[in-house]
Amino acid sequence: MKKKENNSGSKLKIIPLGGLEQIGMNITAFEYEDSIIVVDCGLAFPADDMLGIDLVIPDVTYLRDNIDRVKGFMITHGHEDHIGALPYVLRDVNVPIYATRLTMGIIEHKLTEHGMTKGTKRKVVKFGQSINLGQFRVEFIKTNHSIVDAAALAIYSPAGVVVHTGDFKVDYTPVFGDAIDLQRFAELGKKGVLALMCDSTNAERPGFTPSEKTVGKTFDTLFEEHKNTRIFVATFASNVDRVQQIINTAYKFGRKVAVEGRSMVNIIETARSLECINIPENTLIDLDQMKNYPDEQQVIITTGSQGESMAALSRMANNMHRKITIGAGDTVIFSSSPIPGNEKSVTRIINELLRKGAEVIFQDAHVSGHACQEEIKLIYTLVQPKYSIPVHGEYKHLKAQARIAEGLGIEKDNIFIMSSGDVLELSDEQAQVVGKVPTGGILVDGLGVGDVGNVVLRDRQRLGEDGILIVVMSLEKYSGTLIAGPDIVSRGFVYVKESDELMEEARITVDEALQACLDRGITDWGKLKSTTKDVLSEYVWKKTKRRPMILPIIMEV
Amino acid sequence: MKKKENNSGSKLKIIPLGGLEQIGMNITAFEYEDSIIVVDCGLAFPADDMLGIDLVIPDVTYLRDNIDRVKGFMITHGHEDHIGALPYVLRDVNVPIYATRLTMGIIEHKLTEHGMTKGTKRKVVKFGQSINLGQFRVEFIKTNHSIVDAAALAIYSPAGVVVHTGDFKVDYTPVFGDAIDLQRFAELGKKGVLALMCDSTNAERPGFTPSEKTVGKTFDTLFEEHKNTRIFVATFASNVDRVQQIINTAYKFGRKVAVEGRSMVNIIETARSLECINIPENTLIDLDQMKNYPDEQQVIITTGSQGESMAALSRMANNMHRKITIGAGDTVIFSSSPIPGNEKSVTRIINELLRKGAEVIFQDAHVSGHACQEEIKLIYTLVQPKYSIPVHGEYKHLKAQARIAEGLGIEKDNIFIMSSGDVLELSDEQAQVVGKVPTGGILVDGLGVGDVGNVVLRDRQRLGEDGILIVVMSLEKYSGTLIAGPDIVSRGFVYVKESDELMEEARITVDEALQACLDRGITDWGKLKSTTKDVLSEYVWKKTKRRPMILPIIMEV
Repeated sequence: MKKKENNSGSKLKIIPLGGLEQIGMNITAFEYEDSIIVVDCGLAFPADDMLGIDLVIPDVTYLRDNIDRVKGFMITHGHEDHIGALPYVLRDVNVPIYATRLTMGIIEHKLTEHGMTKGTKRKVVKFGQSINLGQFRVEFIKTNHSIVDAAALAIYSPAGVVVHTGDFKVDYTPVFGDAIDLQRFAELGKKGVLALMCDSTNAERPGFTPSEKTVGKTFDTLFEEHKNTRIFVATFASNVDRVQQIINTAYKFGRKVAVEGRSMVNIIETARSLECINIPENTLIDLDQMKNYPDEQQVIITTGSQGESMAALSRMANNMHRKITIGAGDTVIFSSSPIPGNEKSVTRIINELLRKGAEVIFQDAHVSGHACQEEIKLIYTLVQPKYSIPVHGEYKHLKAQARIAEGLGIEKDNIFIMSSGDVLELSDEQAQVVGKVPTGGILVDGLGVGDVGNVVLRDRQRLGEDGILIVVMSLEKYSGTLIAGPDIVSRGFVYVKESDELMEEARITVDEALQACLDRGITDWGKLKSTTKDVLSEYVWKKTKRRPMILPIIMEV
Repeated sequence: MKKKENNSGSKLKIIPLGGLEQIGMNITAFEYEDSIIVVDCGLAFPADDMLGIDLVIPDVTYLRDNIDRVKGFMITHGHEDHIGALPYVLRDVNVPIYATRLTMGIIEHKLTEHGMTKGTKRKVVKFGQSINLGQFRVEFIKTNHSIVDAAALAIYSPAGVVVHTGDFKVDYTPVFGDAIDLQRFAELGKKGVLALMCDSTNAERPGFTPSEKTVGKTFDTLFEEHKNTRIFVATFASNVDRVQQIINTAYKFGRKVAVEGRSMVNIIETARSLECINIPENTLIDLDQMKNYPDEQQVIITTGSQGESMAALSRMANNMHRKITIGAGDTVIFSSSPIPGNEKSVTRIINELLRKGAEVIFQDAHVSGHACQEEIKLIYTLVQPKYSIPVHGEYKHLKAQARIAEGLGIEKDNIFIMSSGDVLELSDEQAQVVGKVPTGGILVDGLGVGDVGNVVLRDRQRLGEDGILIVVMSLEKYSGTLIAGPDIVSRGFVYVKESDELMEEARITVDEALQACLDRGITDWGKLKSTTKDVLSEYVWKKTKRRPMILPIIMEV
């Protein structure tokens, strides 16, 4: 590798602010002296134990604390785990956003929904174009992914070049636009690359991810085999290429296409206005118009391929959709695979569709958008980085990529599996984690951002598991005597109408314990409450082996 | 098929009381005139939305209502989804239990835990043996499965013979005991079988399930490749054959074996006392003794292969186990595959183990215990049933078997995908669903059986999602004036310390609304409560877009 000039002797810092402890929430700061740039700004979907939470966004305290130095967001592509936190983070860190055309289109739609388009600076970047930001120059490089206009980034700093692949695959025959710009990766490698940050999602999978175009051939075959039925295709809302291919096949077979599901309709509209999708005239029609065509001329592309209970597919399967019901004779193609954790809900909807008499096709109509092992090896071999920093994936995926990098001859000490908040300092001579900045997930619940934390989650967990028993009582202000109650009200604990005896005995138990306290002259509210909790939880555990939350409330009259 | 004599003209009824709307909870009644026999008595694990529920047992109202005719339980094998409801169901339906040796051993252990061994009648049945019960004769036939001593049943009635496979696979080279008794299936088929009820679990999978013995070879290879490390093997507690093979390989390599996890220890003990497992002397040692051996002489077999957070593997990975911690240099083999719905928790534990520095082996060390398509075809071809009734599986699995049966020439009208509660009446001339009996899942939560129903579950769901706001107030008995409150207490809603303003404004909103009511002379508690709910939920929704449960409590003083 050719040595870079670095007169100042300063070092490049790479600081992932999210994305390494969980799937999603990708956001990484690059820092050199007075300049900070940020790659991506994604959200994460809540873990199973985050009851009631809508989404999770990264803690950007570090950016806020260094706001004077933050030059901009570089967005690799338009998926939620790369752009979804922007409307929240921009409130505090309002710096310009740089992205390719469709990515920016999707971001703008999102900002419009949040009423934030006016206050933000945005610049659309072309592939091959570079952006100068303080000490950095950032070049956008064409890649392929399950969304159009995905980019890798070459981040030039005085300390050297870092190549960040974003989410990518190698598709030699993409549906829209060019193949990944492998020549540029090679050129960069030839000149010398300090570090490669490469997508690890499929690093456990051997071989090559097939071209998106193979799915088009599958559609041709499936449409040929189901000439006489309505065809429903469920896929990811943002996969514009997939929709393009369904439309292509539908057109070949003389079928009309309607798109159902708000998120998909939005993205198709955006893609259409940016000419990222090519729809033959009179092919895409409104769902309302479908009734004017016979079954064999209909295709409905829909969201809900993950079994989401409120998505269009689920509503159409469960007779809950205003316009369309899927039933006997229909063909439903899942052009998707279940995201880990969604297996059960996907199976649920498949069972429902089969029960309704529909034919369900679940295999072969999907390919991944991420690079498998051979593609990862290709990128490493072209880029020849000194340091390897696997990104995008759970620990096991990062580890799998680390093994690949090692197999390609990268020294073990030059491979860094980072944690969110780690500050990795890099120069041509050495790289090491030199510190830690605060990071974390901030929970968004309705309009509240960060007002639900561990205490509230723990309470929700407990309330959800075993319900609540509320003990109310009124004490006379001066004498401290019990003038009303204790009464016990429960929710989520037991079906009260059939548990009279249990509840009455519980009440008596509490009453006796309280009277005993008061008789001994104890009027301290803290003591009365703790006594109530103790005797009631013991009684309830003995009788039911359950641990509902117990909440004593004292009113003073 | 040879015609059966059936002088009375009565018909055989098959009534599944569970197992068809969900995985698990297998229980099916067979009825002929004054005789009812029941095949299996399983539990189901709670669905995701059954918060706080421990397990689900079948509603056996039909058996209770016909208790005089119920002759006994025939149990096919010792898995929870076939035996787990016995301790609950026997309380109302205390009839004799018939099962093979290990199955009965496991049942007896379970009954002992519930203090129920004394009151129940149990008979161990040998393969090939028949039991006469009223109008029925039931023959136990050797099969193979992921637990020793699994049986299929030939159920003879005056209306004909029904063959029920139980859970099975075809293993020509089983680890313990004989291969499935294919000759007996053939003999039965030759004489004429009215209906086949066949395991559908793997009906979507082409080919043959490999022999359990192939896993033994994999262990040999893996142990050879990891000669210098401690080896942990995580597998299902009840898979005695798997444990046998791990022990065999350990013995070959001069390693000691300890078993960790209560359920596994119990089953191994039972299997050992019944001589279903063969352990070389000085090989199985106590976990406490392990510290006396070097790493390369240790094997620890453990529960927790599904990522269960309280199981031994998880505790050993998270430094929460009293005796052993898994760390750098250890090898962990998952001899299992994730049960649908457990994918995420399995991944979580794998990530944790990798992070600790252990090597994790996840592939090739497991085979299924269920028959794939070719095995199902084999059984149909041997048995040649007139009617096909796919059992054991979700709808999509039953449907997949129905397709196989059709492909083998069984008439579509003779294939029945039943629902729980359906009464299928069968004779040589015809079969049809003629009625419905009550069925359902009864929820078990701690000691409570059936005291949590839909209302309580709905409350738990809501409490878990958005928490609760409790509004307490005291009214003067005679005047109806508000003498204390309203006070608002919340749990699981918002972090109160940082939401003073919100909570205070909410209180004022409620206070004003209540005063307005009281000023207009409204003292009806129902009205005051509904007003409180309305104004508060509106206020909270406006401010937070959340819908916590709102619970007004009025005390009269």
